[in-house]
Amino acid sequence: MTVASTPSTALLTDQYELTMLAGALRDGTAHRECTFEVFTRRLPYGRRYGVVGGTGRVLDAIENFRFGAAELDKLAADGVVDEATLEWLRDFRFQGQIDGYPEGELFFPGSPLLTVRGTFAEAVVLETLVLSIMNHDSAIAGAAARMVSAANGRRIIEMGSRRTHEESAVAAARAAYLAGFTATSNLEAGRRYGIPTAGTAAHAFTLLHDSEREAFEAQVASLGTGTTLLVDTYDITRGIELAVDVAGTDLGAVRIDSGDVGVLARQAREQLDSLGATRTRIVVSGDLDEYAIAALRAEPVDGYGVGTALVTGSGAPTAEMVYKLVEVDGRPVAKRSSHKESRGGRKAAIRRHKETGTAVEEVVYHVAPGAAEPVLGPHDRFVQIPLLRDGKRVDDLPTLEDSRQRLRHALVTVPWEGLKLSDGEPAIPTVFHTA
Amino acid sequence: MTVASTPSTALLTDQYELTMLAGALRDGTAHRECTFEVFTRRLPYGRRYGVVGGTGRVLDAIENFRFGAAELDKLAADGVVDEATLEWLRDFRFQGQIDGYPEGELFFPGSPLLTVRGTFAEAVVLETLVLSIMNHDSAIAGAAARMVSAANGRRIIEMGSRRTHEESAVAAARAAYLAGFTATSNLEAGRRYGIPTAGTAAHAFTLLHDSEREAFEAQVASLGTGTTLLVDTYDITRGIELAVDVAGTDLGAVRIDSGDVGVLARQAREQLDSLGATRTRIVVSGDLDEYAIAALRAEPVDGYGVGTALVTGSGAPTAEMVYKLVEVDGRPVAKRSSHKESRGGRKAAIRRHKETGTAVEEVVYHVAPGAAEPVLGPHDRFVQIPLLRDGKRVDDLPTLEDSRQRLRHALVTVPWEGLKLSDGEPAIPTVFHTA
Repeated sequence: MTVASTPSTALLTDQYELTMLAGALRDGTAHRECTFEVFTRRLPYGRRYGVVGGTGRVLDAIENFRFGAAELDKLAADGVVDEATLEWLRDFRFQGQIDGYPEGELFFPGSPLLTVRGTFAEAVVLETLVLSIMNHDSAIAGAAARMVSAANGRRIIEMGSRRTHEESAVAAARAAYLAGFTATSNLEAGRRYGIPTAGTAAHAFTLLHDSEREAFEAQVASLGTGTTLLVDTYDITRGIELAVDVAGTDLGAVRIDSGDVGVLARQAREQLDSLGATRTRIVVSGDLDEYAIAALRAEPVDGYGVGTALVTGSGAPTAEMVYKLVEVDGRPVAKRSSHKESRGGRKAAIRRHKETGTAVEEVVYHVAPGAAEPVLGPHDRFVQIPLLRDGKRVDDLPTLEDSRQRLRHALVTVPWEGLKLSDGEPAIPTVFHTA
Repeated sequence: MTVASTPSTALLTDQYELTMLAGALRDGTAHRECTFEVFTRRLPYGRRYGVVGGTGRVLDAIENFRFGAAELDKLAADGVVDEATLEWLRDFRFQGQIDGYPEGELFFPGSPLLTVRGTFAEAVVLETLVLSIMNHDSAIAGAAARMVSAANGRRIIEMGSRRTHEESAVAAARAAYLAGFTATSNLEAGRRYGIPTAGTAAHAFTLLHDSEREAFEAQVASLGTGTTLLVDTYDITRGIELAVDVAGTDLGAVRIDSGDVGVLARQAREQLDSLGATRTRIVVSGDLDEYAIAALRAEPVDGYGVGTALVTGSGAPTAEMVYKLVEVDGRPVAKRSSHKESRGGRKAAIRRHKETGTAVEEVVYHVAPGAAEPVLGPHDRFVQIPLLRDGKRVDDLPTLEDSRQRLRHALVTVPWEGLKLSDGEPAIPTVFHTA
């Protein structure tokens, strides 16, 4: 086995970041103080709120954004940038300021999700990496939050690794846990982020054996009677009968992975109860999304396994966030040729709430010397928190568990219409007090 | 900087693969000779063919599928499997046989895309990793092939890294290149796979400068007059005028990233020609998908930049492939409780063609001692190729360039209705000669 350095994230970057750097180093503009802002112009179709995911991974990735010999050699060999730029990259380490919405925070169109301040040079090179992480993780977190709401307190397990890129799978498991999922099937997510893992058997295990009974016996011998037996390889009624016969009435759960799972869950509950397995839980899986989960609310389902819909963002596989230059040496800047106009100037946000705690509006305001800051009412709060100061993490950054709690609390503040799964306006409006 | 081993892929795995392994080791069934098959039950909505992507990455990942101390410690600490299973995993190295559709090959519902033969133990543990890679890469390759067809020979650059997970981005660039894209913005894809990279500047570069003129001057000084200038930060007509004034009539290209790019391209062509910049190319970007690309066929567009739609599979972010146990000790096996039924038995495929070379049908047949093999006509061919023998790569596996050529040739064989972008049946039917 060969030995390598900790992987650098520096080439997970679009070439134009580095050619812009080269051009700006040459004419001296690279050293201008800039503010870049991450935001999204709109929520995906049908969504009432977004959920910030990935900020913690962004901070890790920035720490490993270093140009080592391997990275510099590649850039030199391809002539991507000139010698002066290579020299600059050799010593690169981000030393600027980053503030942002913490993970698990809700967001709305125009929310200033991440504010990166530094020289043009050090801030521009982070664009691709920051957006890759936040666009992916926020897409998954946003879909996951709707599924968790729909599951209404029942257990919900992420099992989508097989349907997405092998590393996206790990990040998706993290984002799902952040959003309130109970566990993941992905072992690497368990190792890397300490997320609880789960999983027992697929149909292959039953097919491997000479009979369903032998498969169930093998699984119970290995994993105990508290395991979950998959009962739909052949005939479900026969499968449940066998499962209880093999494991006894202490059987942990049965899983149904196909068919009309609502009807089948009701039949399974009756059958389990009639066999005395009244505490045996029923887990359903198989192409579930937030709508299917919600439709099963009235059924005797104790847990859900969710795969494809989760890891593909349930119709919105990217959060469509952008990273835009909004200020140069204190001067607001903005593109202005088309419908894609942006609002210039460094911004922050306050979320206003009623006395009852229900959110009312997202106020996005211009941060500048002399600019008026909105008055903070007794139930309002600033949404951004400091993340990096002079390139170093601030103390006491939220953990993944903190972020999970944050989202849980944030969802309680959403007006009830905003929690509907159906299409509609954002749960609260964004109000701009900007230049 | 800390030093680590080459990353193991072994925990990019669903927990149930290892609990099945544990159960099967305990009762001895782990050593049964098994065949697993990767296939897809249907094509995504609207698609006439699929494109195999990821096979090359699968072979790399299997090579690194080793359980080192770090992986085993994690499994032991969490009690995922017992001591005997840990011992078995410690020495694990896949030593079986893999045959499959090469990358760049077309596929249809039921095509046997990968056939993995070995003991249950060694084959079951690969499920998650194999599917993650193939589902992602084939989803991107399938979307990319439609975009390349729509571009009809014009240059098409992949620039979607910012809209997907940072590692998916690298794999997406590879899949896009496989499908005929000209280049990628992703530098890591350039390093890892030797794909040509491209990119010059974003709007931020213009906004950084005190004027558009200064920005263009800086870019031309750094990248030469052959560069691509982004002309839509402020007013496009003024931008083009400035671009030619700064770079001269040898200016390589202008890029338009917003607005009605068809109309704007026509105006830009007239303006460039009137300024004498008749060889300056026009590149368009901004939320393009295969339909938008096709709609621009009649416009004077010389190249496309494609982002979000490419990396999200243009509506089909996963290929929905499954990995199913189809044979145990020579006996076909299949789940049979529902609409998700599978066809048991090891299979291979022949693609039949007319004398003209046009594909006619995909014949999927049962491979078994004594089973009849379909007669190979003069224009027919076997679709699978051997990939691993006794765990080792066979000689002369196709390179990425080979696979790119393969797809180019395969698309020529598709009946003309099968190349339409609109919804419809698969381009050719799949005919099953199975047990």
